[in-house]
Amino acid sequence: MRALTDTPLNGEEVARVNAYWRAANYLSVGQIYLLDNPLLEQPLRPEDVKARLLGHWGTTPGLNLIYAHLNRVIRQRDRNVLYVTGPGHGGPGLVANVWLEGTYSEVYPEIGRDAVGMRRLFRQFSFPGGIPSHVAPETPGSIHEGGELGYSLSHAFGAAFDNPDLVVACVVGDGEAETGPLATAWHGNTFLNPVTDGAVLPILHLNGYKISNPTVLARISDEALTKLLEGYGWTPYLVAGDDPRTVHQQLAATLDRCFDEIGRRAEGVRPPMIVLRTPKGWTGPKAFHGQPVEGTWRAHQVPLPDARGDAEQLALLDAWMRSYRPEELFDPGGAPRDEITDWLPTGTRRMGATPYANGGLLTRPLELPDFREYAVKVDMPGAQTGEATRVLGALLRDVIRDNAPYRNFRLFGPDETESNRLGAVYEATGKAWHAAVEPTDVNLSPDGRVLEMLSEHTCQGWLEGYLLTGRHGLFSCYEAFIHIVDSMFNQHAKWLKVARHLPWRRPIPSLNYLLTSHVWRQDHNGFSHQDPGFIDHVVNKKAEVVRVYLPPDANTLLSVADHCLRSRDYVNVIVAGKQPAPQWLSMEQAAAHCARGIGIWDWASTDEGDPDVVLACAGDVPTLETLAAAALLRQYLPELKVRVVNVVDLMRLQPVSEHPHGLADPEFDAIFTTDRPVIFAYHGYPWLIHRLTYRRVNHPNIHVRGYKEEGTTSTPFDMVVMNDLDRFHLVMDVIDRVPGLARRAAVVRQTMVDKRAEHHRYVRETGVDLPEITDWLWPAYASA
Amino acid sequence: MRALTDTPLNGEEVARVNAYWRAANYLSVGQIYLLDNPLLEQPLRPEDVKARLLGHWGTTPGLNLIYAHLNRVIRQRDRNVLYVTGPGHGGPGLVANVWLEGTYSEVYPEIGRDAVGMRRLFRQFSFPGGIPSHVAPETPGSIHEGGELGYSLSHAFGAAFDNPDLVVACVVGDGEAETGPLATAWHGNTFLNPVTDGAVLPILHLNGYKISNPTVLARISDEALTKLLEGYGWTPYLVAGDDPRTVHQQLAATLDRCFDEIGRRAEGVRPPMIVLRTPKGWTGPKAFHGQPVEGTWRAHQVPLPDARGDAEQLALLDAWMRSYRPEELFDPGGAPRDEITDWLPTGTRRMGATPYANGGLLTRPLELPDFREYAVKVDMPGAQTGEATRVLGALLRDVIRDNAPYRNFRLFGPDETESNRLGAVYEATGKAWHAAVEPTDVNLSPDGRVLEMLSEHTCQGWLEGYLLTGRHGLFSCYEAFIHIVDSMFNQHAKWLKVARHLPWRRPIPSLNYLLTSHVWRQDHNGFSHQDPGFIDHVVNKKAEVVRVYLPPDANTLLSVADHCLRSRDYVNVIVAGKQPAPQWLSMEQAAAHCARGIGIWDWASTDEGDPDVVLACAGDVPTLETLAAAALLRQYLPELKVRVVNVVDLMRLQPVSEHPHGLADPEFDAIFTTDRPVIFAYHGYPWLIHRLTYRRVNHPNIHVRGYKEEGTTSTPFDMVVMNDLDRFHLVMDVIDRVPGLARRAAVVRQTMVDKRAEHHRYVRETGVDLPEITDWLWPAYASA
Ligand SMILES: Cc1ncc(C[n+]2csc(CCOP(=O)(O)OP(=O)(O)O)c2C)c(N)n1
Ligand SMILES: Cc1ncc(C[n+]2csc(CCOP(=O)(O)OP(=O)(O)O)c2C)c(N)n1
Ligand SMILES: [Mg+2]
Ligand SMILES: [Mg+2]
Repeated sequence: MRALTDTPLNGEEVARVNAYWRAANYLSVGQIYLLDNPLLEQPLRPEDVKARLLGHWGTTPGLNLIYAHLNRVIRQRDRNVLYVTGPGHGGPGLVANVWLEGTYSEVYPEIGRDAVGMRRLFRQFSFPGGIPSHVAPETPGSIHEGGELGYSLSHAFGAAFDNPDLVVACVVGDGEAETGPLATAWHGNTFLNPVTDGAVLPILHLNGYKISNPTVLARISDEALTKLLEGYGWTPYLVAGDDPRTVHQQLAATLDRCFDEIGRRAEGVRPPMIVLRTPKGWTGPKAFHGQPVEGTWRAHQVPLPDARGDAEQLALLDAWMRSYRPEELFDPGGAPRDEITDWLPTGTRRMGATPYANGGLLTRPLELPDFREYAVKVDMPGAQTGEATRVLGALLRDVIRDNAPYRNFRLFGPDETESNRLGAVYEATGKAWHAAVEPTDVNLSPDGRVLEMLSEHTCQGWLEGYLLTGRHGLFSCYEAFIHIVDSMFNQHAKWLKVARHLPWRRPIPSLNYLLTSHVWRQDHNGFSHQDPGFIDHVVNKKAEVVRVYLPPDANTLLSVADHCLRSRDYVNVIVAGKQPAPQWLSMEQAAAHCARGIGIWDWASTDEGDPDVVLACAGDVPTLETLAAAALLRQYLPELKVRVVNVVDLMRLQPVSEHPHGLADPEFDAIFTTDRPVIFAYHGYPWLIHRLTYRRVNHPNIHVRGYKEEGTTSTPFDMVVMNDLDRFHLVMDVIDRVPGLARRAAVVRQTMVDKRAEHHRYVRETGVDLPEITDWLWPAYASA
Repeated sequence: MRALTDTPLNGEEVARVNAYWRAANYLSVGQIYLLDNPLLEQPLRPEDVKARLLGHWGTTPGLNLIYAHLNRVIRQRDRNVLYVTGPGHGGPGLVANVWLEGTYSEVYPEIGRDAVGMRRLFRQFSFPGGIPSHVAPETPGSIHEGGELGYSLSHAFGAAFDNPDLVVACVVGDGEAETGPLATAWHGNTFLNPVTDGAVLPILHLNGYKISNPTVLARISDEALTKLLEGYGWTPYLVAGDDPRTVHQQLAATLDRCFDEIGRRAEGVRPPMIVLRTPKGWTGPKAFHGQPVEGTWRAHQVPLPDARGDAEQLALLDAWMRSYRPEELFDPGGAPRDEITDWLPTGTRRMGATPYANGGLLTRPLELPDFREYAVKVDMPGAQTGEATRVLGALLRDVIRDNAPYRNFRLFGPDETESNRLGAVYEATGKAWHAAVEPTDVNLSPDGRVLEMLSEHTCQGWLEGYLLTGRHGLFSCYEAFIHIVDSMFNQHAKWLKVARHLPWRRPIPSLNYLLTSHVWRQDHNGFSHQDPGFIDHVVNKKAEVVRVYLPPDANTLLSVADHCLRSRDYVNVIVAGKQPAPQWLSMEQAAAHCARGIGIWDWASTDEGDPDVVLACAGDVPTLETLAAAALLRQYLPELKVRVVNVVDLMRLQPVSEHPHGLADPEFDAIFTTDRPVIFAYHGYPWLIHRLTYRRVNHPNIHVRGYKEEGTTSTPFDMVVMNDLDRFHLVMDVIDRVPGLARRAAVVRQTMVDKRAEHHRYVRETGVDLPEITDWLWPAYASA
């Protein structure tokens, strides 16, 4: 691997950057260990040391070194740099740097740049009532916590898209680099425009170890590593050593080279990156109890774990901290000396203060066309069909068109935009692509607003990075495979929960999922493609950040999408089908229905205020089956009083004490009654409805049908039959649950059983659903 | 990239392999399109064509080509080859080959190798009541469905471990290669022993496209791709072209070379792999309606989508199928001609019949030491502490030792075995590692039974591959980060559900998870590391395959682990802590308690058969808090009759109609009463307990405490306080819920409030928990 030998720094510059680095290291160690005596004015006493030592030292000196050198480059070139730290367990390092540059005290005035502030800075770290051990939302300058490893590089690309003035310096842990999401994120260059996007500068931190193992990338040959990184499309530069003087020169020369190359970025040129091979826990204890520590996995967490209880360890800690010569770094009042700070970037050029890391500051609300103009005309409910996502595609096309000048909206997906019937967007834009193009390709464009890579992880990571830097987006995905990013969703939802309560963090655009090709219409791909459980996963997170919508048709989807695109600080999950399906509501009705989130469809009901049974539904396919069941009931049991309720906003079902969207009990009771059977046809796993409603008075009467893990390659209607969600079974459920009906309607019930059997035979013979199923429309008489 | 120019096949051999390939392609197309007229005895009529065309053509000719050539190599070298197909949507291809070789008809006798069988073969594909479109469990020879893309290569490695006689040929889709899990799986060589493990032969299927986009790997330069694959540690050979004659020669030469190299495998030598660059949808329609199809993304699914309704398309389909010259391939009775089959592998050498793909056939039960011998001595409940996972570590050490001769057990984890306190295993084995070793490394060994890579995806994929080929294993992981493999778990659970109902598939060892470093003891890593939701995710899958255990102490953990290691065809989730915690049960009590799965702890109860309140708990930390609350109640409200119930097997809570482990209602009612308040302290998200118990009579009185997404870096006890799961809050809950107690116990309640406040102050001052918390033991008087 190429290693530069230039020595761009003069003696004073080396001393300066080294002193800064020592200061950051000193402050990092102080945070991990000290309760008091921050300036070491006296020898360390046991009571100066925290009783529980929680933190990670090993990665920290490397993070500090890079921060120090980036400061030099930023100041010299007046650049915007965003610092993304893969090994986010190096939290004390980031806090130390941000405090040194002054940002920390601006954001948290109680932690001043003086001895009192330093004492608090140390004390609060990993301490009850204090700050987390990771580079969390609480850390100024961060968009990436780095707790769950693997997403630094996709976050970095997400931040770089459409920010041509930004350089995202992304430290990748060599352990982190073993994760799948990280391993594929290197390919991001194929999607990054060297002119209109910012630059990503990966710094692979080859400190050799993860928790207690060596790392793969540190132990394959230098030749193999070079090939790998070049194969991924980068030009790697090696910075290696354990003598600070040499490493300072080499890192400075290499960063200069990288920023020069970044300045000359062009299509087809492999961008630069850095491989930093320095000891894990550098400058920490060399050894302890005869075992080497510096440069080994033993440096990962807290070396000297009993510094409070064991005098020998305490003395080692004292010596370690003094090795940084704090008296040269801080004045007697605890402020960093001028030599430490006077060459640092200022104002928003400071990496802790960059607005790119507090994206809400940069958010421009989307220009949104009036969604009503995309409406499907619905004169009579259920009388015609439409494809919901195709209709949404037209809206998204114009969102893209109208916001093109601002370059602040993108669509993300794993190669499914077309297959999910959002293809209209290609009338306004293309798919970003910076590799070879063949004549048979369609819709590729170096400047496309659509990002498609067959990696749900990368789509999610890009979108998160894009949102956290203040822009807008939508991720469309097969419903089943969104589980691939369950854990990434977790981390983003946790980030939002914490960030909402930090007054200095501005709201950012919501993370919008469009889940389509959903469980009920994966009849062609079969069982492996059928899983509606992402909703269950999502509702485990804090109610204040999650929203779930199940629009039953195209117009409700338009209204929901408009709402989500305007919202801030949420995760919105929209589940909607792409297949032709009956349209129920006019645009006006749809808007009102979505505003309520739940509603009685009186045109489909016959209850006149006093139902015998409530047919509730949530999701497009369950809504169809429910309406078909309602029609069957009119036909076979005309005297039965049926109320049809549709739920768009799933969170309406929860008590208001559990979710801000929750219906008040009287309202819920009014809609669902307190004593009538409710047959609830639900899109997903049935028990979720129970989990949401178990506190309601009428809960014992709620009977839910949904997906119960039955399915294979078959017909669409066979899918609902296999799960007892079909119209015939819903009618049977009504007959079974309405008191007194069982005997009276025994023949009707039998007819339903026969219908199911007829269906069964027919599909196995013909491979298609019965015409009465495929051609079904809401009977005109009913709504006339 | 290196491409061979040898031409090892004579004319006859080329013709033979080409005829076989044509036959497989013909049968694949037939499956996708035809209902009838399988031998094209007459021109295709509309009614011969299925009304719904569901399948994927594009990938199929490539899969067939590889299968054909592997047949040649297997026969020539008498080797065991397992065929793993990343693009599992090429299902018709695999079925075609397996039918040609005869396996299919042996497994499914109704689908004979004759015209009747061929008609059924065609008809059943992607048809109601038929077979799935993917390489599903129903497909003989498969261990990998390939529905959710990304896991082929980790599955292949999993199958290869400890199978030195096996070559796993693994087709990787070039789209699939963009996924994170696949991108990191290439590193598997660092963990594979060239002598004692089998070989993995990846075949990167560079057909250029995914669904509607080109692929990254097909469009970066040949130089970049070569570097990438060499950087990953492989020796790639290119096979490229669109003229079958040339490609047959080149592929044969390359496979010969690869198998030669595999035969000479040795430490430090980069193993071979193949890059197969052939047209997507090769031999299919060249174009349609003026748009190219063969060699483009348009070939991905079903070309000629309206072959039934449109005469032009029907004619094209007819011509396409006849282009394979079926009359040369099949005799008039529909059997493949001798020339097609007489050179194929026979018996279990056939890839469809290899026992490696029906791993239960090869399973040797584990030698399991008596788990009782590892017991912690518990004379009095709660009187001493132990570290549950450390105790388990000793058992696992001996499992490894005792089964070492059979090489059929492995431990998997993302660099956390030591941190999860299972380090005792290193007394019996090491961690597999085949890259450079430094003097500071510990426990590395080329033959280690422990596999640690910082990729949860790879750990999971390896373990699945290992189990599906009949061996045993355990995956230990931080609880929060197991969500990374949510979707992989889904796919495995779905596989098991289907496989259980296929009589010819033999039971395989269960997938065992040990989730530790759990939500309550991630006080040091903070909020991002706190998520107990995997259990919620798991219980959405079919009850018949999932099991969840929450052993409260070391002895119960031993008993549960023993049970899981003996079980078959399940996914077992065990959640257990690694921190010092009170030990409750003697080994004898523990075994009985685990056998029941739930139990009243009478030594902790004061109810004498008629409780005022039931304190239930599941999970180690909730158990501790519950017992501490019970002790407080004895102290402050001695007259209150308290029953303590502990749940080890979470599935016991469900009705027996929902889960085979479910308690019958009378039993549940006996334990939990039908009318007394139940204060349930649960390890995870509280609503799961409601979801499991909502059908029970006493459900309205069940009040659950659990994790509600509150946490940060703090003390362990502060974690439970933040979530109202602490002993003091449980006592308050009792006071609030037991009728009549509120007024009487108002002062006690106030004391509890004060205790929480005292805790709050104390931890924020000292950083550690109150001594009365950390030193708490079950008061001896109580059980004496
Ligand atoms: C996905 C994931 N798995 C496991 C962990 C547990 N873990 C925390 S730090 C660490 C090692 C990180 O190694 P590396 O990326 O090299 O960072 P560094 O050496 O700089 O500390 C691991 C495995 C994690 N944080 N995330
Ligand atoms: C994880 C995942 N995401 C998305 C899909 C949807 N999908 C099905 S096939 C396919 C393209 C596969 O391309 P490739 O791997 O190149 O296979 P081939 O070209 O051989 O068909 C995609 C994206 C999927 N099956 N799995
Ligand atoms: Mg490292
Ligand atoms: Mg492909």
